[in-house]
Amino acid sequence: GDEESIQAAPTSAGSSAIFKTLLFNTEDNITTICLNRPEKKNAITVPMYSEIVKALEMASKDDSVITVITGSGEYYSSGNDLNNFTSVPEGDIEKKAKDAAELLKGFVKAFIDFPKPLIAVVNGPAIGISVTLLGLFDVVYATERATFHTPFSQLGQSPEGCSSYTFPKMMGAAKASEVLLFNKKLTATEACERGLVTEVFPDATFQIEVWKWLKAYSKLPRNSLALSKQLMRAVEKEHLYAVNAQEVQRLAECWQSDECLNAIVNSFFQAKAKL
Amino acid sequence: GDEESIQAAPTSAGSSAIFKTLLFNTEDNITTICLNRPEKKNAITVPMYSEIVKALEMASKDDSVITVITGSGEYYSSGNDLNNFTSVPEGDIEKKAKDAAELLKGFVKAFIDFPKPLIAVVNGPAIGISVTLLGLFDVVYATERATFHTPFSQLGQSPEGCSSYTFPKMMGAAKASEVLLFNKKLTATEACERGLVTEVFPDATFQIEVWKWLKAYSKLPRNSLALSKQLMRAVEKEHLYAVNAQEVQRLAECWQSDECLNAIVNSFFQAKAKL
Amino acid sequence: GDEESIQAAPTSAGSSAIFKTLLFNTEDNITTICLNRPEKKNAITVPMYSEIVKALEMASKDDSVITVITGSGEYYSSGNDLNNFTSVPEGDIEKKAKDAAELLKGFVKAFIDFPKPLIAVVNGPAIGISVTLLGLFDVVYATERATFHTPFSQLGQSPEGCSSYTFPKMMGAAKASEVLLFNKKLTATEACERGLVTEVFPDATFQIEVWKWLKAYSKLPRNSLALSKQLMRAVEKEHLYAVNAQEVQRLAECWQSDECLNAIVNSFFQAKAKL
Repeated sequence: GDEESIQAAPTSAGSSAIFKTLLFNTEDNITTICLNRPEKKNAITVPMYSEIVKALEMASKDDSVITVITGSGEYYSSGNDLNNFTSVPEGDIEKKAKDAAELLKGFVKAFIDFPKPLIAVVNGPAIGISVTLLGLFDVVYATERATFHTPFSQLGQSPEGCSSYTFPKMMGAAKASEVLLFNKKLTATEACERGLVTEVFPDATFQIEVWKWLKAYSKLPRNSLALSKQLMRAVEKEHLYAVNAQEVQRLAECWQSDECLNAIVNSFFQAKAKL
Repeated sequence: GDEESIQAAPTSAGSSAIFKTLLFNTEDNITTICLNRPEKKNAITVPMYSEIVKALEMASKDDSVITVITGSGEYYSSGNDLNNFTSVPEGDIEKKAKDAAELLKGFVKAFIDFPKPLIAVVNGPAIGISVTLLGLFDVVYATERATFHTPFSQLGQSPEGCSSYTFPKMMGAAKASEVLLFNKKLTATEACERGLVTEVFPDATFQIEVWKWLKAYSKLPRNSLALSKQLMRAVEKEHLYAVNAQEVQRLAECWQSDECLNAIVNSFFQAKAKL
Repeated sequence: GDEESIQAAPTSAGSSAIFKTLLFNTEDNITTICLNRPEKKNAITVPMYSEIVKALEMASKDDSVITVITGSGEYYSSGNDLNNFTSVPEGDIEKKAKDAAELLKGFVKAFIDFPKPLIAVVNGPAIGISVTLLGLFDVVYATERATFHTPFSQLGQSPEGCSSYTFPKMMGAAKASEVLLFNKKLTATEACERGLVTEVFPDATFQIEVWKWLKAYSKLPRNSLALSKQLMRAVEKEHLYAVNAQEVQRLAECWQSDECLNAIVNSFFQAKAKL
């Protein structure tokens, strides 16, 4: 899949000037935001959260018809970078938890509010918030090599990205709880059967097939698409804001609890031990 | 499928007196409303919208247990008749758009408010509003020959029939957007997997199998069925009204935009050119 | 399946002192509530409704991580015991209907409010309220031998257990109505495809496989799981209360109607005649 990825993924000479962790490119009415920390499996650091918000803001205002988010390298994204937690100076836990909750709330809000069709090109495994956010995308295309894992309870945490609402809505509570409470890792096919993924493609032809569709979509009437997407979102926008607020509030409490801190520290050192 | 259709579909000597575009018949506790412009693929004209509302009103008050909507000929319905647009006298666009929006709002409301089990017998391809409305039916039976297509953005338009709410609810946003934003045409099997269709039958035995079920349903306790249907609808009735209002408001704006008018005119002349 | 059931299902020396119709047991961080009227297919009597509420209250306060509900013998539960209706003294119908509605409302509320992950181990056929309530569980595991049947309209009744909301939400209106209005009995596989069941297991290995998962889940962080479950429930708790109130109100009216009483009495005597 890598060769296709390199061939098909957009490159942008100018983007490195604006973003340190992303590639940002607009071409043929498509704006592409590519998570670009392949050596860290595109784990999302604190500065990267802010860059993604800024990139979405730029994409919302440019003249593109659709916006695409994808990852560079073998992973889509391994989610929140656990270094975000372990770098907390002692004694500062309450403030840091509140700041992190505010950061997360604004980050998720940028996805709730995004005014154009937003399409995920899931080029490999996805973990944590990179999975939960997919419930706020309009279309999700995945390579068969992708997996979807939200190990919140293992880490003593709780769901975000509005997934406590979008996941039960799309797949029913019985299947959503298996994923959000009990850490079930979904294959791409399972994620598609549950409505999290629109369509799965063979890895060998993933980029070629997906970009063929995306280029066709980018030729559709711009305003009509944007207004239709906003119409579908308007129905539940206030509800999504409320869910987002509840989720980050719960996480802020969680991040200050011993149960959560112990679980994160244990996971972190287990992961380090494997290296 | 035609022969079975002729055998099994209800006929009504008296209905031609009341309706010009429909067959309307009550027999064995089943009221059947049959869209009857087979030479135009049952495309819905302005007078036909009003006739369907009147037919639903009659069905809601008669002593039938269930009400069935189906199409005559090879199509279920090709949706809104594009002549509804192209016959607009110049200069009148704003008033015509508002009138059309009011007509559409009342039409969809008749489906939201219908007080008995409403069953679609989808005897062939369905397009546009004849697809989106299915989200407001209680049961949808389809021949394997049926397809489901909502090419709104191609026509510069936006979803109606409460589909901006019912489609994401039943199939998740990722699959609903593919249909409502990106014009994906569903086969009967795909529509069934996504929850739009209750069950698919082989075309050769479609009418016989479906009417066997319908006749069994028509023998169930009348009040119990109506009250249970109303109970399921009550949960979201106010929400459906709000969605309907937003959808027609958006369409009224859309119908006055150049993007929409150009897309419709282009499609119309392309279609004509194919004849 | 019986031998595994006897091996794996919890036994409790002390539970018989507290409950007459249930086995109640806490072991290895799992509280198990086992419906224990196998000779009556675990049909739920009036005293049994109260015992289940009491058991859920105890489980919510003990130090278990997850709570499991299952049935003893070949059935999961045949639902409401029809003797609850036929034992009504004449002349008392209005009061009895209101009392029954209040009992039912409180019973369903106990499931809405349950604060920990609640898992159904569906060991055999399920009927009526034992099916509808599954929409309020977090995970539902079923043996392939299980079936799911809600013959409300046959009995002149209407849906309860919040199913008029949870079923359309999980499977779409077109599939939910087939079940709730038209008495379609689902196989375990069909129930899984529709999102009512999380996963189906072969009957021969059902208890062994399920309890392997449950024991793994019981080792996850207690608070994190409870808070995540409450977060997912909070999103729709007020809505569930309103739905529950509407459903029992409708049933109270229904229980006083001739249509309903005739349907119940007929079913009851037909069932007796088969014995």
